[in-house]
Amino acid sequence: MDTDKHLTDGAPEPFTADDYRARMERAAAEAADAGLAGLLVAPGPDLDWLTGYRPTAATERLTLLVLAAGQDPVLVVPALEAPDAARAVGAPALTLRDWTDGKDPYAVTAPLLDVAGRFGVSDNAWAMHLLGFQKALPGTSYVSLTEALPMLRAVKDDAELRRLAAAGAAADAAYEEIVKVPFAGRRETDVAADLAELLRRFGHSRVDFTVVGSGPNGANPHHEAGERVIEDGDMVVLDFGGLLHGYGSDTSRTVHVGEPTEEERRVHDIVREAQAAGCAAVRPGAACQDVDRAARAVIDDAGYGAYFIHRTGHGIGVTTHEPPYMIEGEQRPLVPGMCFSVEPGVYLPGRFGVRIEDIVTVTADGGRRLNTTAREMAIVG
Amino acid sequence: MDTDKHLTDGAPEPFTADDYRARMERAAAEAADAGLAGLLVAPGPDLDWLTGYRPTAATERLTLLVLAAGQDPVLVVPALEAPDAARAVGAPALTLRDWTDGKDPYAVTAPLLDVAGRFGVSDNAWAMHLLGFQKALPGTSYVSLTEALPMLRAVKDDAELRRLAAAGAAADAAYEEIVKVPFAGRRETDVAADLAELLRRFGHSRVDFTVVGSGPNGANPHHEAGERVIEDGDMVVLDFGGLLHGYGSDTSRTVHVGEPTEEERRVHDIVREAQAAGCAAVRPGAACQDVDRAARAVIDDAGYGAYFIHRTGHGIGVTTHEPPYMIEGEQRPLVPGMCFSVEPGVYLPGRFGVRIEDIVTVTADGGRRLNTTAREMAIVG
Repeated sequence: MDTDKHLTDGAPEPFTADDYRARMERAAAEAADAGLAGLLVAPGPDLDWLTGYRPTAATERLTLLVLAAGQDPVLVVPALEAPDAARAVGAPALTLRDWTDGKDPYAVTAPLLDVAGRFGVSDNAWAMHLLGFQKALPGTSYVSLTEALPMLRAVKDDAELRRLAAAGAAADAAYEEIVKVPFAGRRETDVAADLAELLRRFGHSRVDFTVVGSGPNGANPHHEAGERVIEDGDMVVLDFGGLLHGYGSDTSRTVHVGEPTEEERRVHDIVREAQAAGCAAVRPGAACQDVDRAARAVIDDAGYGAYFIHRTGHGIGVTTHEPPYMIEGEQRPLVPGMCFSVEPGVYLPGRFGVRIEDIVTVTADGGRRLNTTAREMAIVG
Repeated sequence: MDTDKHLTDGAPEPFTADDYRARMERAAAEAADAGLAGLLVAPGPDLDWLTGYRPTAATERLTLLVLAAGQDPVLVVPALEAPDAARAVGAPALTLRDWTDGKDPYAVTAPLLDVAGRFGVSDNAWAMHLLGFQKALPGTSYVSLTEALPMLRAVKDDAELRRLAAAGAAADAAYEEIVKVPFAGRRETDVAADLAELLRRFGHSRVDFTVVGSGPNGANPHHEAGERVIEDGDMVVLDFGGLLHGYGSDTSRTVHVGEPTEEERRVHDIVREAQAAGCAAVRPGAACQDVDRAARAVIDDAGYGAYFIHRTGHGIGVTTHEPPYMIEGEQRPLVPGMCFSVEPGVYLPGRFGVRIEDIVTVTADGGRRLNTTAREMAIVG
């Protein structure tokens, strides 16, 4: 069965403690180069990427990886969670320091930190923990990890690219199936449930989003899926993704129930052309904003610029949404191994929307799409 | 069917915009009493409780409710998400202020804030957003919302208590079924999947955890469920919960596969007695730590004090884990309407663990359990 195939034959070589050690060393070196005394990494994608440790939940109990100049990595964990942390693949590459309920975790961590240092802290660290350190060590200062080292996780190595390609292929397989299900007469949430089931069937361990935006709902780019019953004549935006082997998928196609109008077809063509232009702009050395500009120019020239109301793309890796961002003003250069979405759209309020999205990776001489299903408007039933 | 019964007959009256308005007014008043210029509330349980708005995901894009003294509530949202926010039940009780990609969201929000004010900020607000405000408004200062107003959500009203009781009853129904499934010869993850399915069948919209700790795994209180195959003779800790109608369940029972040894029975009896003592200590005016002390004394007296390695309980509401905490040093008094777990345990490393847990609510003259399944050791197959 497809399921088993995706789940087993495709299973990549697991990352090793050495892989995580190398990532932590690189992160510490980049932090030092940026003038930081170290990095404070909270549960979430940064910690996952650096250590392979994924606590069940981020809570008010402090879990924090300290990567400080001139010392080995230390993972501060609640005593209750120490056995789980010790089983993380990256655990052999770090020292665990646990603390018990009732103790002050900031006091436990403080001796690891330069009392006058400036630290990069995970974007998604809890504010209460940052406040805890600011109070315990008033001489320290902080900057968000993404502001300090925005490109830390942006360039993927071969092992990561293989995972992203597998996730993209699985999402594509889900799309090939979803266009065969009935749309007309069913609620958006029904089609969204089908999409989630398909993503799981094709190997996703986690479904992050399954947007089904029919008719006027498609004109709200962040609409997920609601109770609206899809009708004949609807344009339907599908945007879905999640994680497979720890790496993300994210793709959009816009389909139509029955025959489209001329205007619907024209708008779809414009978005498809814009998406192609965005992808064609991907090459090493181009600026992130060049991808946005290339896609946007097509839509502007067609007279729909006012209806393309978001940036063109975002990075993807251990999350489905991370730097680099393809947006006006982002002048950092594209580097081979970067992976991000190219997803222009046109949204006509109260009427319909169109979005087409592929994940693209920067190659030595251009870009390569990790989503390859037909971008022409599929007609569904 | 049971499913439909729990999902439909039991559906509570929805909260209204007026309910949310009243909560926001109370929160603003409590903030002012605490000497704060206002509260900054990020996506998560605080925002859900105050407004009914649950963004799909917390991201690097700022979403923030500003409750400031002398002004109406303002919800700052990314423009893309404004249509979703406008549909939140609490939206009529607040003003939306949106910002578009590329703008500085802190600059957009700053005019709402006293430039020299001290603000309470949601515990789980992203550190990058707190840093954004600290930089934009260097004269402001911050304290975590739980430190400033730890009891803001702790006392539940009748509508909330009905939801918590329904969640507890559904978890109990799941327990009554899980003891009928085969344990011996199956992996912990298999039984955990059964538990998750049962919680959903009895109406849970979200499953937060399904701990199945068999044999030595039961001695790690934060073990979830692993590949270990459960054997005849195993003690098995079950601890499970999630959300139903937006409010949490959380209950633990420890069962045994086949006949227990005398020691296993003795330890189970001690924990059961400790749990009863903890529950018996619940009454208005008692300190939170009294509940911990009452349960702990039983285990200490039996000589197992060194093996009860966590606090006795935590609050529950729109999350399954929140203040108040039943822990030594927490001297705040219990108030009618508070809801929290009473869950002592004994953990014998490398051998087995026992934990028994009920949610208890403080009544006018004592406490009432929201979980009522038998606490005697069930023998499973």
